[in-house]
Amino acid sequence: MAGLILACDFGGTKLSAAVVEAAALAQPEPAWRGHLRRFSPPGADAQTDMAMMMALGRELLVGERPSRIGISFGGPVDYKSGLVRLSHHVPGWENVPIQQLFAAEFGAPVAVDNDANVAALGEYRFGAGRGVADLLYVTVSTGVGGGWILGGRPYRGATGMAGEIGHTVVDPGGPTCLCGKRGCVERLASGPYMARDVALALGMPLDDVSGKLVAEWAEQGVETAVTILERGARGLGVGLGNAANLLNPSRMVLGGGVTKSGPRWWQLVRQTARETALPEVPFDILPAQLGDDAPLWGAVALTLL
Amino acid sequence: MAGLILACDFGGTKLSAAVVEAAALAQPEPAWRGHLRRFSPPGADAQTDMAMMMALGRELLVGERPSRIGISFGGPVDYKSGLVRLSHHVPGWENVPIQQLFAAEFGAPVAVDNDANVAALGEYRFGAGRGVADLLYVTVSTGVGGGWILGGRPYRGATGMAGEIGHTVVDPGGPTCLCGKRGCVERLASGPYMARDVALALGMPLDDVSGKLVAEWAEQGVETAVTILERGARGLGVGLGNAANLLNPSRMVLGGGVTKSGPRWWQLVRQTARETALPEVPFDILPAQLGDDAPLWGAVALTLL
Repeated sequence: MAGLILACDFGGTKLSAAVVEAAALAQPEPAWRGHLRRFSPPGADAQTDMAMMMALGRELLVGERPSRIGISFGGPVDYKSGLVRLSHHVPGWENVPIQQLFAAEFGAPVAVDNDANVAALGEYRFGAGRGVADLLYVTVSTGVGGGWILGGRPYRGATGMAGEIGHTVVDPGGPTCLCGKRGCVERLASGPYMARDVALALGMPLDDVSGKLVAEWAEQGVETAVTILERGARGLGVGLGNAANLLNPSRMVLGGGVTKSGPRWWQLVRQTARETALPEVPFDILPAQLGDDAPLWGAVALTLL
Repeated sequence: MAGLILACDFGGTKLSAAVVEAAALAQPEPAWRGHLRRFSPPGADAQTDMAMMMALGRELLVGERPSRIGISFGGPVDYKSGLVRLSHHVPGWENVPIQQLFAAEFGAPVAVDNDANVAALGEYRFGAGRGVADLLYVTVSTGVGGGWILGGRPYRGATGMAGEIGHTVVDPGGPTCLCGKRGCVERLASGPYMARDVALALGMPLDDVSGKLVAEWAEQGVETAVTILERGARGLGVGLGNAANLLNPSRMVLGGGVTKSGPRWWQLVRQTARETALPEVPFDILPAQLGDDAPLWGAVALTLL
């Protein structure tokens, strides 16, 4: 395979782009030829973010024409038509034909999908998912979201909504989530919700506690933090065990900030998932390997489908 | 397409076989050319059940050679190698090469899979799943089991265990299931468990209450029966809503005896599933159409993959 592949990642507040030589992908650990990251300026909208991303792309390509372009977008995408449906963070993204606009700008075929599906594909092709055909990727961060690889291909569901493990219910008697339900995985296990629960329990201002701080406090043995973090780990574990019973994937890969909460968190997630799944349903649970670059590597993989 | 297709269904206690002309499958409502059902005799084992099934096949074929054979088996099957792993009801089924044995007996290619996958395929191809590409079929009966059609094909998971919705946890504070967990869908929604809970609550002998009776009593307004049946419907609804969030299938099809529990049961299952799934995850929930013949029609469809 020849040529350059341009990968673009529209995060909520960050824009990243990178290029890789297609020939380098045959190597066990391919490296970027170039990589750029910028924060969206205050007041950014779809137009300014797209213009900035295109500028990053041109800077990386230095006059060369890419052979393929892959785009990861942090919001709902219609993969087939190459349309961004909307963004929950940035205005102006309603039904933007991003595939068409980037194809016109760079003169190359474009593939686009949402960040969870793309990150799943990245880990599958270049990270912790190598060697298995069936994979659930879950990011545990500000929210809890996921993406499936089934039979070696992304599985998006009937309307592109597959992977919403964050809003599966694991405890109908649990606390109420913004989605209106009680005991969703996201309500129990996401960073901001855990931070909020700890702040409320300790009578502190909400802004003074973060998910990262909860993990640090738990490490130091602060009882409230331990309780909330462990409840989150168990909630996620039930969600993963349920997913294993339903789909029997070989592997589940966990990424996102909350997965840096230490060995006790990992042990509880794994143990609860194992206890929730039937004994005859085998799987392993591994940390993601690609970190912040998962959507970019996934965008590369998206161009190869 | 020409020739005769032989379909075989090894249930726990019943053996069924049927033949259909391949040419008839182009019709909107194809009919069997012949159909036979026998009870397994007391003391049956794998050998006697297979001999009886082969005799049913020969009787239906009256000297003709089938072009294809499909087999549904009520227990774990290795689809790829055509091996029955075991039966929970009948002795002697450990690692029986059923595909090879039937191919040798009838001189035709054989496909075999477990009854949940096969029934899912039957409803997909000939029943309530016609017209959609992504489908979860769930049988709510003595147990609660399921099978997936994803992208128009059966999805079996990494080791053939996909579809175990019955052992997903929907209430970690709920009653304990034989599998060791609390608040599984099967523990809440299956016929025998509901019957047991009603019998215990009313101080009656366990043998005097069946799942069917629970539904009848609930219809008549017996409070304990209403409570237990509604808890089961809600538990199943959470399980279905979770499955919708995870996989975003277009349709979920419910079969099995418990689905005959009346409109209130259906209304609660549908309402709870809808409340559990995110608003942007669309699906419908329909009753199975093929009844006891689902595995046989599915066995026909299995030969066409």
